[in-house]
Amino acid sequence: MTDQTPIAAADPIDPVLLDRMAEVAVKVGLNLQPGQDLLLTAPTAALPFVRRIAVHAYKAGAATITPLFNDDEITLARYGHAHDLSFDRAPGWLYDGMGAAFSANCARMAVVGDNPMLLSGQDPDKVARAARANAVAYRPALTYISNFDINWSLCSYPHPAWAKQVFPDLSEREAIAALARAIFAASRVDQPDPVANWAAHNAHLHDRAAWLNGHRFHALHFTGPGTDLTVGLADGHAWMGGSSPASNGIVCNANIPTEEVFTTPHALRVEGHVAATKPLSHQGSLIENIAVRFEGGRIVEAHASRGEEVLRRILASDEGASRLGEVALVPHGSPISASGLLFFNTLFDENAASHIALGNCYSKCFTDSALTPEQVAAQGGNKSVIHIDWMIGSDKIDVDGVAADGSRTPVMRKGEWA
Amino acid sequence: MTDQTPIAAADPIDPVLLDRMAEVAVKVGLNLQPGQDLLLTAPTAALPFVRRIAVHAYKAGAATITPLFNDDEITLARYGHAHDLSFDRAPGWLYDGMGAAFSANCARMAVVGDNPMLLSGQDPDKVARAARANAVAYRPALTYISNFDINWSLCSYPHPAWAKQVFPDLSEREAIAALARAIFAASRVDQPDPVANWAAHNAHLHDRAAWLNGHRFHALHFTGPGTDLTVGLADGHAWMGGSSPASNGIVCNANIPTEEVFTTPHALRVEGHVAATKPLSHQGSLIENIAVRFEGGRIVEAHASRGEEVLRRILASDEGASRLGEVALVPHGSPISASGLLFFNTLFDENAASHIALGNCYSKCFTDSALTPEQVAAQGGNKSVIHIDWMIGSDKIDVDGVAADGSRTPVMRKGEWA
Repeated sequence: MTDQTPIAAADPIDPVLLDRMAEVAVKVGLNLQPGQDLLLTAPTAALPFVRRIAVHAYKAGAATITPLFNDDEITLARYGHAHDLSFDRAPGWLYDGMGAAFSANCARMAVVGDNPMLLSGQDPDKVARAARANAVAYRPALTYISNFDINWSLCSYPHPAWAKQVFPDLSEREAIAALARAIFAASRVDQPDPVANWAAHNAHLHDRAAWLNGHRFHALHFTGPGTDLTVGLADGHAWMGGSSPASNGIVCNANIPTEEVFTTPHALRVEGHVAATKPLSHQGSLIENIAVRFEGGRIVEAHASRGEEVLRRILASDEGASRLGEVALVPHGSPISASGLLFFNTLFDENAASHIALGNCYSKCFTDSALTPEQVAAQGGNKSVIHIDWMIGSDKIDVDGVAADGSRTPVMRKGEWA
Repeated sequence: MTDQTPIAAADPIDPVLLDRMAEVAVKVGLNLQPGQDLLLTAPTAALPFVRRIAVHAYKAGAATITPLFNDDEITLARYGHAHDLSFDRAPGWLYDGMGAAFSANCARMAVVGDNPMLLSGQDPDKVARAARANAVAYRPALTYISNFDINWSLCSYPHPAWAKQVFPDLSEREAIAALARAIFAASRVDQPDPVANWAAHNAHLHDRAAWLNGHRFHALHFTGPGTDLTVGLADGHAWMGGSSPASNGIVCNANIPTEEVFTTPHALRVEGHVAATKPLSHQGSLIENIAVRFEGGRIVEAHASRGEEVLRRILASDEGASRLGEVALVPHGSPISASGLLFFNTLFDENAASHIALGNCYSKCFTDSALTPEQVAAQGGNKSVIHIDWMIGSDKIDVDGVAADGSRTPVMRKGEWA
């Protein structure tokens, strides 16, 4: 354009780092193999990133790339204009197609970072019905993801509305630029040779997991301000962290970024009290200063200075919603924690601090990776429709590993690996 | 944005006309019914139009809307970086899903107007292989479209690269504005109440088709500069034009715009020579001054002053690719012809002039609309993987209808209805 068009302002997102991010998403996140198809979901706002992902995916040997875009305005057009019957419908043909793709070893990438408050002004009944219709239609295809049958990965892009939520005092342009920098730093692409950097980071996380697995702790004991919590670990639990192989044999990083090593607690063996160290952002609501008490693995007392009603509704979701499904250790010095930001996005916030999750456990976090659901439950794995992470780590938290004989080993001191 | 960002120049596309275009696409093109799903393909550049289509489709009662976007840069990333094996692959799972959608009465809209020269610099072998792989994968789903089982419709949006090709001497902004005006005029949305205007236009086209059907011509005889061509018509052929009912009972306009009345020629009864009156734009290549000779329905000699190799490859696609699947009459005074523009896009250019199409016939163009594929073939309907229209009409072409007894009736004189 050489005429009336004003000169475009500089892109708020560094194109070199965006390209590196795409390279990491393909090579580290997915570890895409030559001949694999790639199915990619993303917001339309992330088109510049999807284009870079396509370049790296084809370079890596992608046979076909199918991007599926969602768009905020099209979503809002539905809430503004659709007939009521629409909200119980979902494009089952598309979800079934995704299942067919996954069954044929198609890799799956999702670019997250939608507007977290997009539907906050819409009829909650319609929002819930539409979500349920989609969940039911997606369930068969999602099994390939939750069973880790194929290599899949989440990464993120600074959606303007998300950026404004994280940086409400900045202009939209400045907010996008700031969130982009934060994403790139957290995703370890702000340094040269990020692929080698990720290899080192994965090796470090594997070492941590191996050390914890070597000790076969019976429980972890968290102490700090407002916290004296013993989290029993499931029988035959396995610590995981960093890259791991999907059932198709491809070693991938399902989350970019990731800083955690995590395992399955015992649903019946959690005792004591714990205070959250960060607010929990849940479906557009903020829950602050959570403090709960466990008896026999179950939360028997729960408070929050804000959003306590939302917390109670979460805990009442089902029988397993007031028990733990995950415990994860993240050092206070992780890049995400060091940023001091609340991202309002689990992909980032769960990697800022040690955390626990209410609800369903990961069946892969056992030394025997082929357990039946009954065996998982017998070994202490929790079952629920929810899985909600919340942060209990900080620079004031110590963690001890407790062996079956009661002997103790320091795991973390003041939030860092001991 | 309130800071460094320059003030955006006015949108080159009139938002009122764009919204009318979306309304016509949904109400006239598809005649979308309450409760129908909608599958929509579009270039990413057409996102503003897709958003308006979504509003009108949800207002009309769409249950779900699934937009599938294609993107020039992602397509070019493939040609620039993909491994060789990629070009024989297609996302079969997606095409199979589309077939499942169509079998469940999902309506189908396509927004066309991609960059017509996008692939002109790429390896023709790869372009052809990729096109074939997609065609093979899409074939089962496409049957629902070519059999007119469901309501479907094509409409268009001024892609910047397309606009620059049509208006090479204008700046990109001016070219987009000019092409938008041309599309809106051709699509009859440049006047108030375009839905009523389309009803009158459809009635006019139905009258023309009825007159031709009343004569039951055995053949049409085209004469003019470089052209002396007799096109035999299939036994039991039916002329169609304007809106028509799909097998699901929904009356739709499969093309916006449309100016043609058309039917099925006899695959074995085309004789003589014909010179194209406009260039043919095919998959990024321009084929100019096509001149061919038919014997027994088959092209036995083919020349072009430019792109002859591409033409030969088209004709070699399969056995039916060198025989005709359609003949269509368009008066020289149609609004598109009157614009004097070459759109480099079949949706427009085929409505500027009478034309013929190489390849597959439309099985709906028979008086008995429930013929088996074997019956279609027995009555002279051609079969091929391709269907490529090219223009043979101008203000210098006369057309006679030839009855079975050899008697002649003037159909067109100097390009206008006689």
